[in-house]
Amino acid sequence: MGIKGLLYNFHLFSLVLLLVGFLGSVQGRLPSIKKPDPDDAAVTARWLVSHNVWGVLNTISSDLGGAPFGNVVSFSDGLPGKGVGIPFFYLTTLDPTARNAMEDERASFTISEYPIGTCGNKDPENPSCAKITLTGKLKVVDKKSKEAEFAKSALFSKHMEMKDWPIDHDFQFFKLEIESIFLIDWFGGPKPLTVEQYLHPKLNKLAFLMGARI
Amino acid sequence: MGIKGLLYNFHLFSLVLLLVGFLGSVQGRLPSIKKPDPDDAAVTARWLVSHNVWGVLNTISSDLGGAPFGNVVSFSDGLPGKGVGIPFFYLTTLDPTARNAMEDERASFTISEYPIGTCGNKDPENPSCAKITLTGKLKVVDKKSKEAEFAKSALFSKHMEMKDWPIDHDFQFFKLEIESIFLIDWFGGPKPLTVEQYLHPKLNKLAFLMGARI
Repeated sequence: MGIKGLLYNFHLFSLVLLLVGFLGSVQGRLPSIKKPDPDDAAVTARWLVSHNVWGVLNTISSDLGGAPFGNVVSFSDGLPGKGVGIPFFYLTTLDPTARNAMEDERASFTISEYPIGTCGNKDPENPSCAKITLTGKLKVVDKKSKEAEFAKSALFSKHMEMKDWPIDHDFQFFKLEIESIFLIDWFGGPKPLTVEQYLHPKLNKLAFLMGARI
Repeated sequence: MGIKGLLYNFHLFSLVLLLVGFLGSVQGRLPSIKKPDPDDAAVTARWLVSHNVWGVLNTISSDLGGAPFGNVVSFSDGLPGKGVGIPFFYLTTLDPTARNAMEDERASFTISEYPIGTCGNKDPENPSCAKITLTGKLKVVDKKSKEAEFAKSALFSKHMEMKDWPIDHDFQFFKLEIESIFLIDWFGGPKPLTVEQYLHPKLNKLAFLMGARI
């Protein structure tokens, strides 16, 4: 191998290293995840929910005179690649969010495209760096129901440590019953998107979701 | 230069590229950022606010019958390395958050340690992956005041594209007047932390903040 061959190989090696460094540092996610067309509001919304693992859950605070109270929580809408669009949570009433929901179910759940790593150099507030707020009612899932089994596998598959969280903290499964959706994924204001469209995106779009999901 | 010299230089080159790839992909932040001792509640809180560039701003939605409404926003508490702890925002009333605040100032602002990159493999909901919610009143900053100048330099220095956002969208500076603080940075529930302690951490702790800040 001549000098040119060596040069070529080491350039290649450098590129591989660069790529490995890049892939390994975006919070465990691949930056090559394909973002849906912003015109597909339902698919973009489901993609955002499917690819994120945490967000901010907002309730009305009884401790703080009815103020809106946001709290960082982990969530899952299903097994990896098999989400249903409904966010499930694993919360304890030792924390104010679950206590608030017991008194007043009104809640919203907000997530950003930014942590997924697909916003590039765009500012997190730039409308083309997508964000979604699902508004509705935060409800306890009946622990003996099929839905609780679903919530458990959905959450524990994406949040491995949850299965070891202290039993005496009385964690329960909660879900957000979605009543309205606020999605910004491009310039021009929020995208019109009904709960029905969100929960049942057209069949030909589902392929995209399944293929691109974690 | 012989083959050995070439090999050495290209190894070095690869390492530099790897490092550049790594540093450049953690949302513009250094992965070596040092996290404060969780026992120092005030310093941890200020560190969280200083090192994050976005969060979820929660208001009471007049459009949604008084539901708590979270929205992804960018913010800044000061020039890099010179934060004051008060989050400033650049919002337009084309967006519901600013409109909500005009009708009801009650608000909270929630940020997570997770995007900083210092939570390691911990789940975002794990109490040792810190989170903070500042609750208070969301107020417009008088555009002719010194405070508006401060807000402008604080925001535009950390969010370069803001200076080019459309003038006809009538963006205004807002700030959260903090009334209470909810901080989780370790096991054992929220840390007691007064607004006074948060705004004026002990002098000997400030050195840490300044040294470790962006």
